[in-house]
Amino acid sequence: MRFQQHLDDAMAAATPLLGRGRVADYIPALAAVDAEAFGMAIATVDGEVCEVGDAGRAFSIQSISKLFSLVLTLALGGDAIWERVGREPSGSPFNSLVQLETENGIPRNPFINAGAIVVTDRLHSLTGDAGTAVADFLRAETGNTLLDTDPAVAVSEAGHGHRNSALAHFLASYGNLENPVATVLSNYYAHCAIAASCRDLALAGRFLARHGVLADGSRLLTRSEAKRVNAVLLTCGTYDAAGQFAYRVGLPGKSGVGGGILTIVPGHGALCVWSPGLDAAGNSVAGVAALDAFTTSTGLSVF
Amino acid sequence: MRFQQHLDDAMAAATPLLGRGRVADYIPALAAVDAEAFGMAIATVDGEVCEVGDAGRAFSIQSISKLFSLVLTLALGGDAIWERVGREPSGSPFNSLVQLETENGIPRNPFINAGAIVVTDRLHSLTGDAGTAVADFLRAETGNTLLDTDPAVAVSEAGHGHRNSALAHFLASYGNLENPVATVLSNYYAHCAIAASCRDLALAGRFLARHGVLADGSRLLTRSEAKRVNAVLLTCGTYDAAGQFAYRVGLPGKSGVGGGILTIVPGHGALCVWSPGLDAAGNSVAGVAALDAFTTSTGLSVF
Amino acid sequence: MRFQQHLDDAMAAATPLLGRGRVADYIPALAAVDAEAFGMAIATVDGEVCEVGDAGRAFSIQSISKLFSLVLTLALGGDAIWERVGREPSGSPFNSLVQLETENGIPRNPFINAGAIVVTDRLHSLTGDAGTAVADFLRAETGNTLLDTDPAVAVSEAGHGHRNSALAHFLASYGNLENPVATVLSNYYAHCAIAASCRDLALAGRFLARHGVLADGSRLLTRSEAKRVNAVLLTCGTYDAAGQFAYRVGLPGKSGVGGGILTIVPGHGALCVWSPGLDAAGNSVAGVAALDAFTTSTGLSVF
Amino acid sequence: MRFQQHLDDAMAAATPLLGRGRVADYIPALAAVDAEAFGMAIATVDGEVCEVGDAGRAFSIQSISKLFSLVLTLALGGDAIWERVGREPSGSPFNSLVQLETENGIPRNPFINAGAIVVTDRLHSLTGDAGTAVADFLRAETGNTLLDTDPAVAVSEAGHGHRNSALAHFLASYGNLENPVATVLSNYYAHCAIAASCRDLALAGRFLARHGVLADGSRLLTRSEAKRVNAVLLTCGTYDAAGQFAYRVGLPGKSGVGGGILTIVPGHGALCVWSPGLDAAGNSVAGVAALDAFTTSTGLSVF
Repeated sequence: MRFQQHLDDAMAAATPLLGRGRVADYIPALAAVDAEAFGMAIATVDGEVCEVGDAGRAFSIQSISKLFSLVLTLALGGDAIWERVGREPSGSPFNSLVQLETENGIPRNPFINAGAIVVTDRLHSLTGDAGTAVADFLRAETGNTLLDTDPAVAVSEAGHGHRNSALAHFLASYGNLENPVATVLSNYYAHCAIAASCRDLALAGRFLARHGVLADGSRLLTRSEAKRVNAVLLTCGTYDAAGQFAYRVGLPGKSGVGGGILTIVPGHGALCVWSPGLDAAGNSVAGVAALDAFTTSTGLSVF
Repeated sequence: MRFQQHLDDAMAAATPLLGRGRVADYIPALAAVDAEAFGMAIATVDGEVCEVGDAGRAFSIQSISKLFSLVLTLALGGDAIWERVGREPSGSPFNSLVQLETENGIPRNPFINAGAIVVTDRLHSLTGDAGTAVADFLRAETGNTLLDTDPAVAVSEAGHGHRNSALAHFLASYGNLENPVATVLSNYYAHCAIAASCRDLALAGRFLARHGVLADGSRLLTRSEAKRVNAVLLTCGTYDAAGQFAYRVGLPGKSGVGGGILTIVPGHGALCVWSPGLDAAGNSVAGVAALDAFTTSTGLSVF
Repeated sequence: MRFQQHLDDAMAAATPLLGRGRVADYIPALAAVDAEAFGMAIATVDGEVCEVGDAGRAFSIQSISKLFSLVLTLALGGDAIWERVGREPSGSPFNSLVQLETENGIPRNPFINAGAIVVTDRLHSLTGDAGTAVADFLRAETGNTLLDTDPAVAVSEAGHGHRNSALAHFLASYGNLENPVATVLSNYYAHCAIAASCRDLALAGRFLARHGVLADGSRLLTRSEAKRVNAVLLTCGTYDAAGQFAYRVGLPGKSGVGGGILTIVPGHGALCVWSPGLDAAGNSVAGVAALDAFTTSTGLSVF
Repeated sequence: MRFQQHLDDAMAAATPLLGRGRVADYIPALAAVDAEAFGMAIATVDGEVCEVGDAGRAFSIQSISKLFSLVLTLALGGDAIWERVGREPSGSPFNSLVQLETENGIPRNPFINAGAIVVTDRLHSLTGDAGTAVADFLRAETGNTLLDTDPAVAVSEAGHGHRNSALAHFLASYGNLENPVATVLSNYYAHCAIAASCRDLALAGRFLARHGVLADGSRLLTRSEAKRVNAVLLTCGTYDAAGQFAYRVGLPGKSGVGGGILTIVPGHGALCVWSPGLDAAGNSVAGVAALDAFTTSTGLSVF
């Protein structure tokens, strides 16, 4: 349990910030969350799990699901996805349409909404059900058979999703969707609305710290692919604050507006933190502070 | 000499690409370079240097100098510089004015031209001579007393520098320059026009692999500062191809239109490559291929 | 018939250009048009109609319908519409989303697609059926009881309308639609797909040359309102070529991708031209040339 | 004196707004102006001049000079200038660099700063002294031999002109300047800093109402050219509020941050108003109101 003390210290460092920031409130289901909740868990490459706080409490993973839809798409369909989505930081808010127009319907990266919609479309073509594919993967890696989409959140997102509908129709206008807009969006909402805990997400992300090897010892991605996913996480995983996140935390990571952040410590483990209050860029205020404290005390940033 | 074979292999991998890309030709002094030149050198944290090809041949370091002006500014002036320049990838070409207008004169990061001009301005205030400060630092770290600005290149850059003059006046219009435009630009050109070899740059960058400790054992940056500079290099160091570079190479790095790329392998060493042919984003075609081969064969990317 | 010779001369001037430009082909129904067709008609304030060429042949009025939805909205709902749409030239293509994001969901003017969608939404709220309202108005002013929406075109537009769907959802995401997206779009397509001839459109636009007075002598708009609609036509009516159109033709006008252009000669009459070949900005090549010739020979530009 | 009553009424309508808005204060020489001053004058095509208020008081004409540099360039150099500057409304603030980058150094129109700098450059090549050429023209048309550049204003502008320096260097970087940046800017400031009264400007602009014929009966522009200049004035003459100005006032016009607005009533006369308080777009608050009242009471808009 070599990380327990570091997790305790990270939580102590983050505690004064609990309640800071703004809880995502664009849909009622998210706004109802406990604003002062905090959890953190690490799943190490050698099979341990350490936890602190509300690490077992499920929250809406939101954009963290984009990581899983990407890795499944790469595993099933290979590099072809990179012809339909880029790998560069966007320098713009996650739901912006501006770059998409300038760049003729090729989203900058798979973690802005437009890019994640394209990835979902591709995963849907590959699997027949992109939403279920992501949930199945998370259940398999975590052993948590109860883990699933929260249907109330998925419905609520669809009901408040004009911006995403605009993005999807815009992508379709450039010929960058294979499936009908409605199908793609319902699958996109299905995986974004998955509820999972820090413990679940640390377990599910661990294969990236193990350079592609899953819980059962099989390989999802090659070593090179796993490293490359980590690279995309580091440069694009935290919206238009990726530079700031790399500077403070120094780990590849994906955040969600539910307040979760899943980070990878290559060769060591997957570390997930959750606290609902968000900063202006949409990243968890207390979560970033806890990760900053953790990488400072362990010296485990990639740099 | 544990890296010699890897360097030889990397050069072999890059050789078919020599002459590919386009040599920077916006000034005659750069256009005259040998388009098929190639060199590579690594300076390890424990004092070794391995080389291959034209590793001892001096070339125009151009934007690689921005790394050194940044670290000197941080060392002498601390974090205050981050109030005048950001740390986010720009998502735009290195000499674009667009974002600067949208963001009220605060450049996105210290490695696009606008940001480097602000850093040069600050370093000039701190030292009285920003151009000389960078050259002095490089001479001290390399022991190469002949290393210096190529005055013909500096003059030529100034004579073709309307875009940089526009950036500097634009920054001044927002009050983000302390010194006169002409002074700042002449210092900026002075450090960009330094001629140095792969060997020189690997030696000069090694302190970042040693987490801030210089050749003489003194400390230029704290461990945390050094890691953070590496983070900024990784997210912003290769123009608007930073995502692609992280994906292929997986190391913090700074490129220049002279064809050089200086990368940091934290805890291991500083690795510099040079070949003049550039891709569309302004990074050396053969250089990136050699770095890709090196990190693949050594497994030494940060991810 | 004082304008007959001028119309004949304008047609003669335009004839060498017939077939130039590119027929709108984004939907099959438009692509099937006779590329070399040409018609022109003027309806004077004192009741005459002069015609030349295919002036009686119906074509798809497309964006020219935006003028009629605007004037009906102003007549029924007054100036309130100006809180939801601007009156400035956009400087961007007619279907761009970029400005909409920068300006928080308020379209620049009522003649770009986004603005016309907002106007249609408002007109639908005011009338219960925006599509029919426009067609009814055109039938009333022209006396042409056969004038109507071409259902094949409307269906085809809806089937190729991802860009407009994106715009409508985007507007909805900013709260700038009162009716459901699907309702607004079907009404929008209904009025865009109206088929009418040059003669019809000249008669329907004549009230703007009469400063607001309809065919039956009743007043649709006040004198001031009618002048102001002419001002918006002149600055915004021909996409991002409004400056060029004012320079060459010097009349308020609204063009459509069906190849029609309806212009107003204040105090004299309404002049409509049609020829399907479009220039890069989406305006009829031969149509603009004919209008240029007409205003030059008559001296009747507003300047 | 058929316009005297209309001028009196227009001044009465504007009086409650005197002091509203914000006086241009980016240079001390402009900030020192009497904020509540108001003058208005019309010079008719048949030789009358009517005035009200401070119509004889000189103020800094600023961007109104861009109209005169354009017409002289057209008169001396013909249409060639349109290869270096466009004729479309910009949809952006007058001193923006953004569009210039997107459109590769061709300014949108001759009335935004970038466009006016290009026109000044061309006029300088044509005359050897662009600043003097504009002043000479104004003296000739007005008979006011004392009319001249205010050297204090010109010096002050140059000293606060980083934004214009940025624009000029940016244009030079695209090869769109024939003369050195410093030369072009000093001529640009020379004509912007001319001091003239409403009476002077109405007399100097009258030839555009007379379709190109100067005070001495000679012709500066052809009838067609004069109409086309009026078109550019209407679509581009009042910064990014051209649509709004056309809507409210309905006349071709050019405004300046000194608070003057010169408008053309084709076939009737040139009408100039001055009051220093500016709205957000940089147009005189009381001036626009007075013009609105004038065109409403006379019915003399172009629409």
